[in-house]
Amino acid sequence: MTDLDIDAQADLDDVDVDEEPKRMVLVCWSSDLDRVWPVMILATTGAASGLEVDIFFTFWGLRALQKPDKRITGSNWKQRGESFMDKGGAENLKLGKMHMGGMGTGMIKSLAKEHGVASPAELMEMAMELGVRLHPCQMTMDLYGLKEEDFIDGLEPVCGAANFIDMAANADIQMFI
Amino acid sequence: MTDLDIDAQADLDDVDVDEEPKRMVLVCWSSDLDRVWPVMILATTGAASGLEVDIFFTFWGLRALQKPDKRITGSNWKQRGESFMDKGGAENLKLGKMHMGGMGTGMIKSLAKEHGVASPAELMEMAMELGVRLHPCQMTMDLYGLKEEDFIDGLEPVCGAANFIDMAANADIQMFI
Amino acid sequence: MTDLDIDAQADLDDVDVDEEPKRMVLVCWSSDLDRVWPVMILATTGAASGLEVDIFFTFWGLRALQKPDKRITGSNWKQRGESFMDKGGAENLKLGKMHMGGMGTGMIKSLAKEHGVASPAELMEMAMELGVRLHPCQMTMDLYGLKEEDFIDGLEPVCGAANFIDMAANADIQMFI
Repeated sequence: MTDLDIDAQADLDDVDVDEEPKRMVLVCWSSDLDRVWPVMILATTGAASGLEVDIFFTFWGLRALQKPDKRITGSNWKQRGESFMDKGGAENLKLGKMHMGGMGTGMIKSLAKEHGVASPAELMEMAMELGVRLHPCQMTMDLYGLKEEDFIDGLEPVCGAANFIDMAANADIQMFI
Repeated sequence: MTDLDIDAQADLDDVDVDEEPKRMVLVCWSSDLDRVWPVMILATTGAASGLEVDIFFTFWGLRALQKPDKRITGSNWKQRGESFMDKGGAENLKLGKMHMGGMGTGMIKSLAKEHGVASPAELMEMAMELGVRLHPCQMTMDLYGLKEEDFIDGLEPVCGAANFIDMAANADIQMFI
Repeated sequence: MTDLDIDAQADLDDVDVDEEPKRMVLVCWSSDLDRVWPVMILATTGAASGLEVDIFFTFWGLRALQKPDKRITGSNWKQRGESFMDKGGAENLKLGKMHMGGMGTGMIKSLAKEHGVASPAELMEMAMELGVRLHPCQMTMDLYGLKEEDFIDGLEPVCGAANFIDMAANADIQMFI
């Protein structure tokens, strides 16, 4: 039964029932700083406002869940090469636009600090404390040769596209970021 | 009460009530011509079809709301440097892909003109006339050092991520573009 | 009548009616391998899980529907130039990030093959067999000078932004990818 059914029921019965919380499901597809940031800001703000929040980390986005000290991952040269080019860990993300050899990324990070905007790594910790569920994508893990021990602690069990679709179809907000 | 409740109510009462309009909430995250364009085409088409439309301009996307003659904005060198690299104003947007020093952007703009497709700047004016609400993101404004006087006229009051989530959770369509 | 109304109705009548299938509407905006891939994985997984799925191919994304042997399309130099730079056909897509002159794209494609992940071209065929509806965007076709004969077989009739919005407003999942 969705919260909308409950609304309808409540209208009919003139009974005041507690509404189920709204649900938000986000896809974190990118490892770019400028995309992981809005994912984590929306997730933490949503959770702080009382929404149930799930994030599905897939494709490049999976890199954001990596332990910051895991420099090279995977078990063959292709996987190891990819991990070298796309350095993982929420603290190591770079802008997808105007990175300019680090200058743009550094500038934005420093502006954020001055204005009290938390970093993606801080927001990720905050998110988990607020009950946001972080789901790593099974297929991408296989592709990259990533193992559960390569990831930070506190994640949900790995899941696939079908699980994600099921979550999304029952959510009030779904966004691919 | 959502429009779905009204539907349910109508079914029960066998009364024909006017349906509430559908709602669309878009995030304009990018200042790339090829992303601002679909945002504005969807917004104007939606509003012309009778939907209530809100757009939340955040991160790079905030630049699309800048007055075209505001070349340098912000109050310190980092903010001013960022504003110099990412020239604001809906008339100055460039393709995120195949910009090729202006050639690709010029080509697409010229094709659009030949085929009667309005420019993002024209669509933005049209959108406001059709009642589309344009919301600048507070946090990004702080980050970039942008002030209300840097923006075109006719915008909604600045708002934050919590306001956006509230709008999105009650909309029929939400998309991050 | 939406499936939510039916739910509400069912609750009231205490009658067990069959639920209408959930609906997913995706926008395929990009011709990058790393974006077309998630579109097609979500579409095929969704359809295989019993959802009704529609994909709206627009802007760069329209290129994914092109016949692989159509190298140059359009009727004037601008359209022909654009088609030369953004080679069409689901088999020819390149990564939007770390393409590195083909090395990155080749590496990911080869990893996918080793791990039994179907290619976008294979997924597109599978999608159509599963009943996913592929809609080319009218306005982009005009812009690029693309004709129906430039596309693969089995597509839905061309449609515009208003049709897309109508589909999206009645869907349970909408995502812009």
